[in-house]
Amino acid sequence: MNECAPSSASRLSAALAAIRAGGLSAQVSTAPSVLETHSHGEAMEAACLPGAVVFVESTDHVATVLRACHANRVPVVAFGAGTSVEGHVTPPDHAISLDLSAMTAIVEVNAEDLDCRVQAGLTRQALNARIRDTGLFFPVDPGGEATLGGMCATRASGTAAVRYGTMKENVLGLTVVLATGEVIRTGGRVRKSATGYDLTSLFIGSEGTLGIITEVQLRLHGRPECLSAAICQFPTLDDAVRTAMEIIQCGIPISRVELLDSVQMAASIRYSGLTGYEPLTTLFFEFAGGPAAVQEQVAATEAIALSNNGQAFAWADTAEERTRLWKARHDAFWAAKAIEPGARVISTDCIVPISRLGELIAGVRQDIAASGLRVPLLGHVGDGNFHALIIIENTRQGYDRAWDLDRRIVARALALGGSCSGEHGVGMGKLEFLETEHGEGTLAVMRALKNTMDPRNILNPGKLLPPGRLYQG
Amino acid sequence: MNECAPSSASRLSAALAAIRAGGLSAQVSTAPSVLETHSHGEAMEAACLPGAVVFVESTDHVATVLRACHANRVPVVAFGAGTSVEGHVTPPDHAISLDLSAMTAIVEVNAEDLDCRVQAGLTRQALNARIRDTGLFFPVDPGGEATLGGMCATRASGTAAVRYGTMKENVLGLTVVLATGEVIRTGGRVRKSATGYDLTSLFIGSEGTLGIITEVQLRLHGRPECLSAAICQFPTLDDAVRTAMEIIQCGIPISRVELLDSVQMAASIRYSGLTGYEPLTTLFFEFAGGPAAVQEQVAATEAIALSNNGQAFAWADTAEERTRLWKARHDAFWAAKAIEPGARVISTDCIVPISRLGELIAGVRQDIAASGLRVPLLGHVGDGNFHALIIIENTRQGYDRAWDLDRRIVARALALGGSCSGEHGVGMGKLEFLETEHGEGTLAVMRALKNTMDPRNILNPGKLLPPGRLYQG
Repeated sequence: MNECAPSSASRLSAALAAIRAGGLSAQVSTAPSVLETHSHGEAMEAACLPGAVVFVESTDHVATVLRACHANRVPVVAFGAGTSVEGHVTPPDHAISLDLSAMTAIVEVNAEDLDCRVQAGLTRQALNARIRDTGLFFPVDPGGEATLGGMCATRASGTAAVRYGTMKENVLGLTVVLATGEVIRTGGRVRKSATGYDLTSLFIGSEGTLGIITEVQLRLHGRPECLSAAICQFPTLDDAVRTAMEIIQCGIPISRVELLDSVQMAASIRYSGLTGYEPLTTLFFEFAGGPAAVQEQVAATEAIALSNNGQAFAWADTAEERTRLWKARHDAFWAAKAIEPGARVISTDCIVPISRLGELIAGVRQDIAASGLRVPLLGHVGDGNFHALIIIENTRQGYDRAWDLDRRIVARALALGGSCSGEHGVGMGKLEFLETEHGEGTLAVMRALKNTMDPRNILNPGKLLPPGRLYQG
Repeated sequence: MNECAPSSASRLSAALAAIRAGGLSAQVSTAPSVLETHSHGEAMEAACLPGAVVFVESTDHVATVLRACHANRVPVVAFGAGTSVEGHVTPPDHAISLDLSAMTAIVEVNAEDLDCRVQAGLTRQALNARIRDTGLFFPVDPGGEATLGGMCATRASGTAAVRYGTMKENVLGLTVVLATGEVIRTGGRVRKSATGYDLTSLFIGSEGTLGIITEVQLRLHGRPECLSAAICQFPTLDDAVRTAMEIIQCGIPISRVELLDSVQMAASIRYSGLTGYEPLTTLFFEFAGGPAAVQEQVAATEAIALSNNGQAFAWADTAEERTRLWKARHDAFWAAKAIEPGARVISTDCIVPISRLGELIAGVRQDIAASGLRVPLLGHVGDGNFHALIIIENTRQGYDRAWDLDRRIVARALALGGSCSGEHGVGMGKLEFLETEHGEGTLAVMRALKNTMDPRNILNPGKLLPPGRLYQG
């Protein structure tokens, strides 16, 4: 350790002085309540407070902050809506939390081309509300009130991914501020291009470790002419999984297919007043398209469900009934939380090839039984992705029990050719699984890319990549 | 220049000795006819012969070759089917052409999960023939008999991209041999994952400059229950483009929509015996899905076409009639070639946001008129991508006239927010346009990534990236 090197505290002071000198005095806050709200996302506990929060309003602001942080080697952590459940927004010691939540402009809407450009702090709900009169919508729906920049950074997806894909398939281009403060644009407005490395995809899912995303060019989709919903209950989990698998295999373009296991269904019946249903494994379906296509999809789905012992198949084509059903699904997390008032809920996020989902969940149920915990299961079953909602008391011991169960579930998923996270990201919460999932050589390449983009390691250090070898060509 | 450095010829000899010593003697060829066929793809002229061709049969073979080339700083150019039209497979001086065309194994087919793993030398037609009995197919269709590894390397797409996406959306994972000979796997079998940088997308479209792709995990799709085709003619190009645009905007899940302009249509009527049609701008449609959905799509498409002055709307639901129509579309290149026997055809590959396509093509027609050349136009109009098939005599002057026209067309597309290549790639042919298209800073990042993955610059040197600054964090 160089005795003459400035301390992290003095480096932070120097960076803040440069940021203020760059015209951003009014954007800097060190108020204790502000530092506290920027010390953590959801689920993960806070490690420490950020040294300061800078509320940026433009790409130029972000560039000013990064130039100051780069010059002074100060860590920078981007913060949007704070909905991360894997510790992405948790700052290291003496870091700057870069709050982009005021960057909510819609830069352009190109309705004829089904695309738009937005600032990174806009939430998807706000976007959809503001473009409603165009007849278009942005389909990626991770559930929470997340920002589009944060959704890019974590490669978010959710219930509509089975039809519309994830952020990876729905982002055309980005504006990114690099570690030095240099601003680049990636991709563009065209639907496809074969010119050059796919930098857009490299930044999607990079969790703020390669650059700060400030603008996003999004694909939009036409609102479907008709929507319909259905629900079906199954005597066993295997029957439900097989139903979902056959729907996908038959190429039925279903827009959502979600699984609630019997524990979750019992909670949802109570919480959402879902009368007329049993606490059995249940699939929720949504169909979209022209009226004949929707009718055809519903009929084909019903036939598959019945051939797999489905019962109480009921479909809802009024807006009210559809909303009632899907509100119950969207409130599943709160229903789980209400099982034990005052409890915390820690969500796993494994994904496997869909044919292995039944086997995985059977094993997971053994782990749950052995743990003695209450754990409803909730699945984006068309993708093979599911969440075990581990209900714990808000104590050190409670968290430890949750992480222990999470480790067992992840180990099962990886052994079946899966991934430890379908949509929540790595952050700090999944670091320990990356080498098993990707292999040491693949991580060595990722580290080499990180080192090239950010050799001073100021961009969200300690997230996404466990330490280790760098690939050297 | 270091006087003591070994010449490129002696380095090649040393690499070949190491390759032979590694057990690959029988794989190495320096036969003149072999060197000649590996000196060029399609369209671009050969610059020089490769120093040798190595016919690899496994990932281990590729690793052996790369270790030898890395140690001796010998350039390596991957070669599959040789269908590149932008000079991707053209070797530099004293290079090894790495022929993967014997790597045609299907490693696994997971029909339940709609995926498969293949070696990189397998062609898409061979794959589809071999998995026909599963009821599944791989949809990306660039027209030619290309290898799946080559399609990954150039981020290929084609006529079905409007429905199924490009290689980017249809590859789940890769096996890649890095410059040092180290082998890594990227991605996996799951439909989505949020863990780590998207290395799969980084290699897709990297044109053999970051690593050699040896295996590909592909998404498969269920063969649709029904297919139908239709054709419609338009008095003006704008009418046809507006029709395509409205189809996409309405969210009609059309599986193909292709434009032939009046010059191309005249050629196709003659070449393919398309009786009953006029030499007018024409759209070819393909619809897929359940019977009711297909009928609904056709009806909606017809209504849109007629409201845009479409005439002679005719649909074909027998397999014979559908095949006759679409064979004419697939033979369009040959029909263009037949306009002037003995001529060469150079294809442009611009793409713009679909709303700008009419404006672009109007300008392109002025350029064509000024050039005095015969140039049919052919478009993947649902994506905004089109090919001007520039018919030239096979002389230096002929090529120069084609490149001159290509430059004018690209300049127009870039000014309209487009890309110089929707699907053919950069290779050597599009290098000069990259800085205008992406910006200097974005190219500096790409160069830094290339330098990290291949600091000795042995992987397809001189392709994809023009020389210039490297981003330094």
